[in-house]
Amino acid sequence: MSEDQAHMVNGHKTGEEVLPFEEDDYGGVIVEMKTPMDPKCFIATLRYSFTQWRLQGKKGVWLNLPLTHVNLVEPAVKEGFRYHHAEPTYLMLVYWIPTAESTIPLNASHRVRVGAVVLNPNQEILVVQEKHGTLRGSGVWKIPTGVVDEGEEIFTAAIREVKEETGIDTEFLEILAFCQYHESFFAKSDLFFICLLRPTSFDIQKQDLEIEAAQWMRFEDSASQHITQENELFKEIHRICSMKMEKSYTGFYTKPITTFFDDKLGYLYWNKQEMSNHIS
Amino acid sequence: MSEDQAHMVNGHKTGEEVLPFEEDDYGGVIVEMKTPMDPKCFIATLRYSFTQWRLQGKKGVWLNLPLTHVNLVEPAVKEGFRYHHAEPTYLMLVYWIPTAESTIPLNASHRVRVGAVVLNPNQEILVVQEKHGTLRGSGVWKIPTGVVDEGEEIFTAAIREVKEETGIDTEFLEILAFCQYHESFFAKSDLFFICLLRPTSFDIQKQDLEIEAAQWMRFEDSASQHITQENELFKEIHRICSMKMEKSYTGFYTKPITTFFDDKLGYLYWNKQEMSNHIS
Repeated sequence: MSEDQAHMVNGHKTGEEVLPFEEDDYGGVIVEMKTPMDPKCFIATLRYSFTQWRLQGKKGVWLNLPLTHVNLVEPAVKEGFRYHHAEPTYLMLVYWIPTAESTIPLNASHRVRVGAVVLNPNQEILVVQEKHGTLRGSGVWKIPTGVVDEGEEIFTAAIREVKEETGIDTEFLEILAFCQYHESFFAKSDLFFICLLRPTSFDIQKQDLEIEAAQWMRFEDSASQHITQENELFKEIHRICSMKMEKSYTGFYTKPITTFFDDKLGYLYWNKQEMSNHIS
Repeated sequence: MSEDQAHMVNGHKTGEEVLPFEEDDYGGVIVEMKTPMDPKCFIATLRYSFTQWRLQGKKGVWLNLPLTHVNLVEPAVKEGFRYHHAEPTYLMLVYWIPTAESTIPLNASHRVRVGAVVLNPNQEILVVQEKHGTLRGSGVWKIPTGVVDEGEEIFTAAIREVKEETGIDTEFLEILAFCQYHESFFAKSDLFFICLLRPTSFDIQKQDLEIEAAQWMRFEDSASQHITQENELFKEIHRICSMKMEKSYTGFYTKPITTFFDDKLGYLYWNKQEMSNHIS
């Protein structure tokens, strides 16, 4: 990026103001474009900003362009910015100033999904038939599943999906197992957490948009479905459930924890029951 | 998107060809722009394509614009596309045709990180001091950590990070616990997997770029560091390690599994050792 160009655009003298920015904790700056800007004015102001940031020894420059500022995407890329990530309403670009290797963090790589195992005291499992997706019209009964929303806890997502799809209220007990697989959509990967939940209500009220049918099914009937024998993941879920029903399996329970150094609240998932709840 | 406009651009009659596309499994189409295109020509061809896709009852339209096609981002957004995700070299946009609610999958929401607990037969733990980051210059010894690459297995990432940072070869034993926390960078979340590894070599050769120092440290000395008492995550890692050293803890082991319905190979993480390796 060259270090000159103060000129007149739209009657404003540009190139003597730095774009509004915040500093991050890693020697970088974050520019969030909020007011509309003419591309020529943007380029001039950006170039002047870079002269200042270089002098200040800044490293990464983050540029957040809301969808309304799509006219600045091409100029930014031509000035050397690269895409970092995007959400429906904005595109984040990044520029690494130093000659040393970039320490820009990688983009998010995984989508997180949950499957909810809900067993009632009659040895029945809560299952649904879906209106869409691969199993549509197949007659297969499966556990409720769904995607963890951005910022949502895994255990919260499992409780939410069960409530949404079947109307059943539940408490989280533990994560029985999880599964990682790749190229789930485009180059992104999936982590699929199998959660064990205890029902606190029992009357099913199925959701109509996505769910064809929902029921409490005898666990043996679910386990003996053709698909449970054919599909390795279905089989593993039922095998682990069987062990759990015989109290010969423990998964990971959750506890709140502050993580690292910014007092951020997170959740630790670990084998709490190991010492107390094991079959002897 | 309107359904007209066949006109002359650059001497070519446009608007009578459909953009090259592939079909996906969900009634959608994927357009990957490979050859350069003039924006006017692109808009005309895109509009004609939409008339065809609508007639065919298509749902989602994915538009992959490589960085070299940045000139088409603004036209695409003005035609109604929204950002879906981005990587350094491309931007993926999406358009949902039906009036019914969109079933476009959510973008990846999590970055996945690993921390590697490597214990040798002398009750020593492999620890490093980092050159960058929050702990730089603090004198704190910590376990090797790192980010799981796109498409990489969690256990492979743990083995790789230990090798890169310390030169030590290891085998994966199990996942001791994991942690989820949010807003790790911008709106994205982190999943942090604490992996137990068995060393198969013992001579440390530290990497110079990121690592200030590396050593085998007596486990009690690591546990009694000031930070281990102060930081909840450090404390939990040492507490779980202690239980593990007393053989009174089991984590999740891994097994290969084909997932869902496309014979995709994944890995299941589950409590394999429950039945066999428990202290009695």
